[in-house]
Amino acid sequence: MQLGLVGLGRMGFNMRERLRAAGHDVVGYDRNPDVSDVASVAELVQKLTGPRIVWIMVPHGDPTRQTVEELAGLLSAGDLVIEGGNSKFTDDQANAALLAENGIKYVDVGVSGGVWGAKNGYGLMAGGDAEDIERAMPIFDALRPEGPREEGFAHAGPVGAGHYAKMVHNGIEYGLMQAYAEGFELLSASDVVTNVPETIKAWSRGTVVRSWLLDLLVRALDEDPELTELRGYVNDSGEGRWTVEESINNAVPTPVITASLFARFASRQEDSPAMKAVAALRNQFGGHAVQKNGSES
Amino acid sequence: MQLGLVGLGRMGFNMRERLRAAGHDVVGYDRNPDVSDVASVAELVQKLTGPRIVWIMVPHGDPTRQTVEELAGLLSAGDLVIEGGNSKFTDDQANAALLAENGIKYVDVGVSGGVWGAKNGYGLMAGGDAEDIERAMPIFDALRPEGPREEGFAHAGPVGAGHYAKMVHNGIEYGLMQAYAEGFELLSASDVVTNVPETIKAWSRGTVVRSWLLDLLVRALDEDPELTELRGYVNDSGEGRWTVEESINNAVPTPVITASLFARFASRQEDSPAMKAVAALRNQFGGHAVQKNGSES
Amino acid sequence: MQLGLVGLGRMGFNMRERLRAAGHDVVGYDRNPDVSDVASVAELVQKLTGPRIVWIMVPHGDPTRQTVEELAGLLSAGDLVIEGGNSKFTDDQANAALLAENGIKYVDVGVSGGVWGAKNGYGLMAGGDAEDIERAMPIFDALRPEGPREEGFAHAGPVGAGHYAKMVHNGIEYGLMQAYAEGFELLSASDVVTNVPETIKAWSRGTVVRSWLLDLLVRALDEDPELTELRGYVNDSGEGRWTVEESINNAVPTPVITASLFARFASRQEDSPAMKAVAALRNQFGGHAVQKNGSES
Amino acid sequence: MQLGLVGLGRMGFNMRERLRAAGHDVVGYDRNPDVSDVASVAELVQKLTGPRIVWIMVPHGDPTRQTVEELAGLLSAGDLVIEGGNSKFTDDQANAALLAENGIKYVDVGVSGGVWGAKNGYGLMAGGDAEDIERAMPIFDALRPEGPREEGFAHAGPVGAGHYAKMVHNGIEYGLMQAYAEGFELLSASDVVTNVPETIKAWSRGTVVRSWLLDLLVRALDEDPELTELRGYVNDSGEGRWTVEESINNAVPTPVITASLFARFASRQEDSPAMKAVAALRNQFGGHAVQKNGSES
Repeated sequence: MQLGLVGLGRMGFNMRERLRAAGHDVVGYDRNPDVSDVASVAELVQKLTGPRIVWIMVPHGDPTRQTVEELAGLLSAGDLVIEGGNSKFTDDQANAALLAENGIKYVDVGVSGGVWGAKNGYGLMAGGDAEDIERAMPIFDALRPEGPREEGFAHAGPVGAGHYAKMVHNGIEYGLMQAYAEGFELLSASDVVTNVPETIKAWSRGTVVRSWLLDLLVRALDEDPELTELRGYVNDSGEGRWTVEESINNAVPTPVITASLFARFASRQEDSPAMKAVAALRNQFGGHAVQKNGSES
Repeated sequence: MQLGLVGLGRMGFNMRERLRAAGHDVVGYDRNPDVSDVASVAELVQKLTGPRIVWIMVPHGDPTRQTVEELAGLLSAGDLVIEGGNSKFTDDQANAALLAENGIKYVDVGVSGGVWGAKNGYGLMAGGDAEDIERAMPIFDALRPEGPREEGFAHAGPVGAGHYAKMVHNGIEYGLMQAYAEGFELLSASDVVTNVPETIKAWSRGTVVRSWLLDLLVRALDEDPELTELRGYVNDSGEGRWTVEESINNAVPTPVITASLFARFASRQEDSPAMKAVAALRNQFGGHAVQKNGSES
Repeated sequence: MQLGLVGLGRMGFNMRERLRAAGHDVVGYDRNPDVSDVASVAELVQKLTGPRIVWIMVPHGDPTRQTVEELAGLLSAGDLVIEGGNSKFTDDQANAALLAENGIKYVDVGVSGGVWGAKNGYGLMAGGDAEDIERAMPIFDALRPEGPREEGFAHAGPVGAGHYAKMVHNGIEYGLMQAYAEGFELLSASDVVTNVPETIKAWSRGTVVRSWLLDLLVRALDEDPELTELRGYVNDSGEGRWTVEESINNAVPTPVITASLFARFASRQEDSPAMKAVAALRNQFGGHAVQKNGSES
Repeated sequence: MQLGLVGLGRMGFNMRERLRAAGHDVVGYDRNPDVSDVASVAELVQKLTGPRIVWIMVPHGDPTRQTVEELAGLLSAGDLVIEGGNSKFTDDQANAALLAENGIKYVDVGVSGGVWGAKNGYGLMAGGDAEDIERAMPIFDALRPEGPREEGFAHAGPVGAGHYAKMVHNGIEYGLMQAYAEGFELLSASDVVTNVPETIKAWSRGTVVRSWLLDLLVRALDEDPELTELRGYVNDSGEGRWTVEESINNAVPTPVITASLFARFASRQEDSPAMKAVAALRNQFGGHAVQKNGSES
């Protein structure tokens, strides 16, 4: 089927490839003319035959909002906007409301898989009305991995549910990564296990902890067995923070996901103001003479 | 090849099947005569031709220690004991020292895979001397999953390293399970995602969080979509505790693994003494009239 | 000096007493006519001579907002509103903007001390313009504890800073309470210390952990040495949640404050959905036969 | 009364002063002849009239054990050894057993107060037989703070209970310090509160969080308002680790104390191996091009 695709960055570019390989007619727009099929969003809309489908794949926040607003002025009643970026679920609800004023439908889709999705397919979680999701199903079927549809695609609920599901997915992802990372550090710190990369590789089959993330860790250790070339500096994107916020809003204890987020915060600090305060306190009750090696008392 | 197998419980019984299916000659002993091939460990040792290999698969702690002591008196110099249970790595070091007095060799193996190992093969991590591990390799090859050996078996290091690796594996396992569990609870608590089991099933392919544990969660939710039939009561075995102890001994921060362990402790408490103390404090500064709904002040 | 006081609940009632004892002329209003000096906020405003000062002491959220809106219509340019409840700092900024349209000034004050403040004085943290805070200083001096002003009162910053400081104060409070509570539970769980309440009382003087909260814990244990009469069920008010939200907004790791908040969430759950999921996972890989006592594998 | 005091370091030296000021006859020994009253432990024992009391105040572990062993050979049945250092409670039990072979009695005392104890008195928690503790009470009364005995001294239980109580005290201390430290960092990171040291000083009176540790934090901020002269590098002594180990042994969730310990571990790491692993994972699924700023996917 025919669709417009706004945003041809790392994710969007690959998705256009995968969609075209599945036989879909994709008109792509990007600010970067080297990859764009058209000169503007307006031209993209013009090239589509109604009722249109336009997939947005730009950074969340202002860029997505501006694209929605632009499309609100260009599309017609009955057209469908699919927001496939990493929007917050509350933004989806606002976007849908704005577009609904002009009779334009809205579906939000959480897309997982990273750069590997181009080859493996993307895990998809959609939010919106059933009829809108049904209408876009050929697109979802082209993007999702091979195999039973329900193992790579879900209609998670009403508008916002797709990105809510993706948000929680990413929160879980933080926790999984941190769990492997702690295990890696402990194995490395102790001198009992002398073949750390080999040991982790041996978890690839048969064990309880086998997973795709483990496979990636094995790949990383194949390239750099002690990870000496990397700094332990880790960014976080919105989803981890939103997951913790939502856990607080719903009074759900999420110690693992939150600890994973805090570990990232700490990884980016040159020095910890909190630990300065602890050091100051120990110095105060331990005496000036023990400033650097003060013992508890 | 020929080997003795002491302990034919849930794990040992399946392993005997898998070893026999691979053509090995297994003499199994268990206290339960219904599953045992011989009447005693002594008879088991007698039936083996030297140099013998005896695999121990009984509960860790006293039962394993008693079996090692019994074998120390029955086996001969050059025989090999493989401890495949869940021993603590320090117990391995003690076991190896005891057997070495009689010239008996010792290898410890961490075995992962649970009841699924019978079909899928078991992930194996071994500790000991290279020549002893090489000698037992046909057994390991029969037990491990199909595929490249290094993806299901590792020689992790000297005696103790196999169980150390398994200990850390289980610590990671705690963290992974807790991460999925927190995500499940948050999805369930919020009303944004209305199709929780379908959403989690859709993570099975293509996503970053896909894993064998996720597949098991999908299975569990297929059977009981809201997990209403289960209590949130979770035991812990030694490995999680030992992982945290070792992280402390090595000054490695393991907030995720530890939070997962503490969540299990809390799951088993009828009421929390700590939270009684917090309630008491709030009552004290909030006034007796607000005992049940006191606000911070 | 003269002031109006809207809200004569547990906190406001005591504050009126303390202010009057210091010689101030307080006109109090409350929905409860038994404690109110006037019949309405309008009458309260009428009774004050301009330029007026009105202190708000009602629950945060809608009640505070409605009171601010009502006062916006009743007060005159140059009058001063002091919000002494537990408002979120962002609400203060909105309140100040609303009142500023009519030339009415705004100061927010975080008030700590609970029911004990009536006797001991209240710790105060104020946000707003210096001239407004200076103007209200006789009120603050009457409310704060005896001793140097700077040990019980601070001008924390611009509008919102008073409640921000109080928010962080309460976040710390969560952490302090949880620390004592964990220590209490560990002492109680172990059989090494046989005189737990006596031991905790002995921390009252000379030790590093001595504090007012410890004194309250001693009081509570004097009344009920094993806290048998209390349930370990603990509410949370907004400040703890806001503290964690703000720590996320500022990428500040706050593991202790957050763990304290999560412990409260968990204390209110009949059963933990997350731990149901962990139990389900262990059941899946451990086999149906071991549903209740499954071991890791 | 008369007593020997082995160990005249920071703590022991001050304690000798305080004991002498109370009229006790103290014979002190230290390896450092500048502060020692006698040339050897043997001479110290000789100078005491039986039945003797000898207080040990040397570093825990080997130094304490060696002193106990030396005293076992020098003292006589009916003499009393008081171990006032930071021994692990299990060491106390071993020490008492060793001395009991010669009829020598043993009491362990946890001593809190740091350098301030010289002036304020020390908080004391004792373990041992009631008659032995009663016998040493004049010493405890001289060391503890003024005020009711039960507010600065407790007989916590049998041998080991004194140091167990001190261990838990220090675990709580970790949590308290971390709670204040997190609050300090959040106040500093946000731009809402502009007068951070003044705000914290204002918590000194009337608030719920007032404490001796808060007073020390105020002192530290008086000297260095932004703590710029300190590194956020914090050692830990044994008690924090033992507290977590004991919480695991007793299945007591202690998330706050443990998080405080882990924060100290992390403060001493140049770079975090765990966060290297997380960075490696993100790099793997985010693509090489995004190594430094990879987003979740």
